[in-house]
Amino acid sequence: MFENQNNRTELGTLGEFGLIKHITQFIGLKNESSVKGVGDDAAVIDYRVSGGAHLQTVVSTDMLVEGVHFDLAYVPLKHLGYKAVIVNLSDIYAMNATPRQILVSIALSNRFSLEAVEELYSGISLACERYGIDLVGGDTTSSPSGLVVSITAIGEAEKKNLVYRDGARESNLLCVSGDLGGAYVGLQLLEREKKIYKENPGIQPDLEGNDYILERQLKPEARKDLPLIFEGLKITPTAMIDVSDGLASEILHICTQSGVGCNLYEEKIPIDPMTYSRAREFNLDPTTCVLNGGEDYELLFTVDIAHYESIKEHADISIIGHITDSAAGCNLVSKSGTVHPLKAQGWDALRKS
Amino acid sequence: MFENQNNRTELGTLGEFGLIKHITQFIGLKNESSVKGVGDDAAVIDYRVSGGAHLQTVVSTDMLVEGVHFDLAYVPLKHLGYKAVIVNLSDIYAMNATPRQILVSIALSNRFSLEAVEELYSGISLACERYGIDLVGGDTTSSPSGLVVSITAIGEAEKKNLVYRDGARESNLLCVSGDLGGAYVGLQLLEREKKIYKENPGIQPDLEGNDYILERQLKPEARKDLPLIFEGLKITPTAMIDVSDGLASEILHICTQSGVGCNLYEEKIPIDPMTYSRAREFNLDPTTCVLNGGEDYELLFTVDIAHYESIKEHADISIIGHITDSAAGCNLVSKSGTVHPLKAQGWDALRKS
Repeated sequence: MFENQNNRTELGTLGEFGLIKHITQFIGLKNESSVKGVGDDAAVIDYRVSGGAHLQTVVSTDMLVEGVHFDLAYVPLKHLGYKAVIVNLSDIYAMNATPRQILVSIALSNRFSLEAVEELYSGISLACERYGIDLVGGDTTSSPSGLVVSITAIGEAEKKNLVYRDGARESNLLCVSGDLGGAYVGLQLLEREKKIYKENPGIQPDLEGNDYILERQLKPEARKDLPLIFEGLKITPTAMIDVSDGLASEILHICTQSGVGCNLYEEKIPIDPMTYSRAREFNLDPTTCVLNGGEDYELLFTVDIAHYESIKEHADISIIGHITDSAAGCNLVSKSGTVHPLKAQGWDALRKS
Repeated sequence: MFENQNNRTELGTLGEFGLIKHITQFIGLKNESSVKGVGDDAAVIDYRVSGGAHLQTVVSTDMLVEGVHFDLAYVPLKHLGYKAVIVNLSDIYAMNATPRQILVSIALSNRFSLEAVEELYSGISLACERYGIDLVGGDTTSSPSGLVVSITAIGEAEKKNLVYRDGARESNLLCVSGDLGGAYVGLQLLEREKKIYKENPGIQPDLEGNDYILERQLKPEARKDLPLIFEGLKITPTAMIDVSDGLASEILHICTQSGVGCNLYEEKIPIDPMTYSRAREFNLDPTTCVLNGGEDYELLFTVDIAHYESIKEHADISIIGHITDSAAGCNLVSKSGTVHPLKAQGWDALRKS
């Protein structure tokens, strides 16, 4: 739908080393900690300890596979590159750490031209630019079919600031940044328009007036502001995770690993009005979209109840429940007051295939 | 040829989280620097500075794609897992650094059973065990077809010990560990037997008496002993790279990045007698197999000529040439004394597809 096939340079004319050279020629290093980037057997990183701080290194990796995680019929390659970086940075922010470097590996078939690869890397570069990240390494290879993008993100944090999934304690507040469900409803819209387009290629996709949910799906952002907000409020979450798989699954991760239960209040879940109304148009329950949809890349966290006053005032944080004893289980309290056990139906890549 | 299909548990019965849980249940952490492994948004690593040492972090990543880098007709999954780790560790040793952690991402189609995934991970685990590596993270997802394994290796080195590709200087000795060409000739043997097997499935593959070259291809090792040898000989190479793409390509990387030329002497290239005779049987020039074959995972390095005496005595290191002025170019001096410019035909994944 969005592809531009006007210019086409075959990758075979460059070869692997030529392609790497072409891609990396404009890559500069921004972070002092990026000692050596692309061009040797390995990248070299130097997180120096200064002023008695105890720095630790944080590493996360994610693989995106064509036909499983993205559909190039409606995902422009630039957006894909951007999102592939964001997905990884989000994991680093979810540790309350600061991402500094990424390594990018791609496998692609000869269906892709040099211009297509450039588009992909322009999105990767844009994300690096906006988040202050250096691309320090990677691998480029061919695939018999389709595109695979595997990114590893590396960051740093002071040991005392790191937040794991297992620190939630009874009576902690359960909080989430931003709003949820938009990325999933945006995906439903794109899938519908793709279906219409396939049945009748003459009809142009009708995506107008849906910018917000489309951006949530196609060009998500990672919450790099959250660690700063915590610093400003003098709060360290007791547990944190990013919302990539749907809220229910993420809450259960925190509760299982922390050995606690929780009450999640349906009426407290932040849902944007556009997400809500489009979900309704698709005959979807907006709450179900939030619980099982995923890809919102907001941060879910728990904090000591002593911080209630400062948290409740914050425009971009919602208190959606509280942590209970593990014996009470993990529950969703519906708007009508009925209590249901939370289930992780999540976005399960292996079941979908 | 080697597949065992007796037991088969469908991956769909576990789901993504179930599979991750299953795979990771036996993973323990060996290194003090592995603070947090699998199970959170990111792994946490702590390379502490001790005794005034200035540690730096070294990171490398490689992606192996079915049908491009391996053929499951003759590569057992356990060997594939082992080799996928080795390929990455080799890059870390090529920096004169010590690998400590890996992250493993796999994409696989539902053609693979749980038992197949277990085989793959048993090879990964074995490599981790032998090399003292912790598996601290990764991603597991589905693919529409085929298997993709993407591994990121992380290691540490004292800043002063790191060896880059760009430090080769005029009159330096050009050296290589072990022997070369075996992996490529082993691959030719496997390809021949596969072809025979395909044409007549009744004939069992005739691989007897070829253990060495088959192991070089199917179960390579990384030269973790080299940094120790250098330490023992009180040598720091001026430049180093691992031989993954063929000797010619690797020499040219060092010469180009160091801004120098070189003379490589054909008669000095270490080739195992089995590699030599099997190459001849295939009507291949053994030297060409070395120059363009690749996958040997030996280390190619340059050292100051002052170390000539200590290097020449070492049973596992060959001096194969010397570094010259860049104006002299990069040359192969043949056994008959004729001089040819070195060309990187290498193993080019993108041209092959």
